[in-house]
Amino acid sequence: MRVPAYAAPGARAPLAPFAVDRRDPGPTDVQLEILFCGVCHSDVHQARDEWGSAKFPMVPGHEIVGRVTRVGQGVTRFKVGDLAGVGCMVDSCGRCEPCRRGTEQYCTQGAAFTYNSTEMDRTTPTYGGYSTQVVVRESFALRIPAGMDPAGAAPLLCAGITTYSPLRKWNVQPGQRVGIVGLGGLGHMGVKLAKSMGAEVTLFSTSASKQADARRLGASHFVNTKDPEALKAHAGSFDFLLDTVSAAHDVQGFLSLLRPGSVMVLVGAPPEPMKVGAMALIWGNKALAGSLIGGIPETQEMLDHCGKHGIVSDIEVISMQKINEAYERMLRSDVKYRFVIDLASLKT
Amino acid sequence: MRVPAYAAPGARAPLAPFAVDRRDPGPTDVQLEILFCGVCHSDVHQARDEWGSAKFPMVPGHEIVGRVTRVGQGVTRFKVGDLAGVGCMVDSCGRCEPCRRGTEQYCTQGAAFTYNSTEMDRTTPTYGGYSTQVVVRESFALRIPAGMDPAGAAPLLCAGITTYSPLRKWNVQPGQRVGIVGLGGLGHMGVKLAKSMGAEVTLFSTSASKQADARRLGASHFVNTKDPEALKAHAGSFDFLLDTVSAAHDVQGFLSLLRPGSVMVLVGAPPEPMKVGAMALIWGNKALAGSLIGGIPETQEMLDHCGKHGIVSDIEVISMQKINEAYERMLRSDVKYRFVIDLASLKT
Repeated sequence: MRVPAYAAPGARAPLAPFAVDRRDPGPTDVQLEILFCGVCHSDVHQARDEWGSAKFPMVPGHEIVGRVTRVGQGVTRFKVGDLAGVGCMVDSCGRCEPCRRGTEQYCTQGAAFTYNSTEMDRTTPTYGGYSTQVVVRESFALRIPAGMDPAGAAPLLCAGITTYSPLRKWNVQPGQRVGIVGLGGLGHMGVKLAKSMGAEVTLFSTSASKQADARRLGASHFVNTKDPEALKAHAGSFDFLLDTVSAAHDVQGFLSLLRPGSVMVLVGAPPEPMKVGAMALIWGNKALAGSLIGGIPETQEMLDHCGKHGIVSDIEVISMQKINEAYERMLRSDVKYRFVIDLASLKT
Repeated sequence: MRVPAYAAPGARAPLAPFAVDRRDPGPTDVQLEILFCGVCHSDVHQARDEWGSAKFPMVPGHEIVGRVTRVGQGVTRFKVGDLAGVGCMVDSCGRCEPCRRGTEQYCTQGAAFTYNSTEMDRTTPTYGGYSTQVVVRESFALRIPAGMDPAGAAPLLCAGITTYSPLRKWNVQPGQRVGIVGLGGLGHMGVKLAKSMGAEVTLFSTSASKQADARRLGASHFVNTKDPEALKAHAGSFDFLLDTVSAAHDVQGFLSLLRPGSVMVLVGAPPEPMKVGAMALIWGNKALAGSLIGGIPETQEMLDHCGKHGIVSDIEVISMQKINEAYERMLRSDVKYRFVIDLASLKT
């Protein structure tokens, strides 16, 4: 079926109305009427071909929450009327070691990402959530916990899992001192999630104006990273750091804040290579790690965790027609903390 | 008691005969007649004040094996006639969290390192193993397994624990693919230890001439790192990498060899900051970590492991009088793979 969407026609053109074909649901597919779709920084990077692999026309959007409207005959986990989510992936081979481990983003055949990618036939382009409908394999659809606000849930599908996964993988424990670097779409989820795991959270930001918000979101402490003395006061005191900043910044300086044997994980990717002295890692047995979204089983675990702890994203709901303006505002950090498109605006 | 030693009188002077005072053993001390002392790269760095914290005159040496000649009345783990080892540390506070965790190198008061440091009174200088006797707290003396060659055992006290600790901490398992980067004093221990843990070991070296030795030491594969195609063939295939190289080199290139979720640990410290792109860590959930020697309990565990597996260091035994020549040869990598001083040469 042909459904309305918004697409980037090319790297230098604003997003504009478009239409995409969605397949009829196969035996293991579910069809969703999309209710809400979050706006991720990577939408802008890819729509503007800043990562060098853009396929146009491109329909961005991988933070999708919708209502199940049709299910294939073999579908067992969803029924018509359920809420469901779709994150960064819509399929993978399912047989390779990374897939079997539940890390489908590292499928050795290459996962089918939700947009700017292809289905596993390697031919059919994938189109994302800036659209009114999507059809996806049941195994890549996530259950939205009962009672969760569907608009606030949408950003959990990318910003949520991106920050949840490293906190879990590196085993953050109640009472530990956790630092979150940067307060944006990722950082605000990092604060909420680390707090929900029982950590004592410190927010590091270059903007003193974010102190009140940091505390409201759950941070016990705030450090202005423009003040070198404030940073020094925390030397060697953190059990874990999550760095969400994608602008150039002094990563090595943050390593000095870790206790011996601790880890700092990057989820934002500064454009230039970082400069890190080997001794900053050797002295203190420290690790600098990276983390990319998360697999499907862990995404469901994250949603269930958020349901249990009453966590959703802080959002500003916009109409589909405001997307180009939203991109500009997001680049200025002028959003607290995630834009979410109400797809009802595309149906009228 | 006053005992013969060799000391660096200053940063630019060769090592020369010297004498040091050793305390009478207290109730919890053991006195060792030093039989052998390994020659570590850090001996040269510190004797030449290349790390900027040298105290002269300096008696280097922290890979010590000796015979117990006196024990304090409270000593329970050693008796006269036992072989014992002393590594990089001779004391620590014993009460802080890192000490209680058995990571005395991170004692919050600062450990008493074996030389170029002070005892915990922060006044008495420590002098290392280029000497005929040493007195040390029982809790910092290591048991040398029965039947182990005392000369070959000496380098285990630094080179051995430095490579053993990261292999254990990052949980290297039988059958895993482990890469060791560089074949020197550290690298050759890395190959032997990884092999003894059941790993399938690959040695990476810039010197094709080291291939035969790598295989003799236990490596199943050899990769000449000057051949970019050879490196590419191993992309994404390693479960763990241990980088022992202290010269400048392309660390990021090795990260591409790791499988998703894997770790590369640095134990050599290149002088210039490394340049690492964030995406090299984010894509693949990889970690770049460091590791510094190891604590006392783990050093004993390493010695016991080596005893069980028949592992010692490959060494060239020299007299104390040849130390300055040995430094020059070591800087040219002209040793397979560790010089060990026979302290009998200082007693005659």
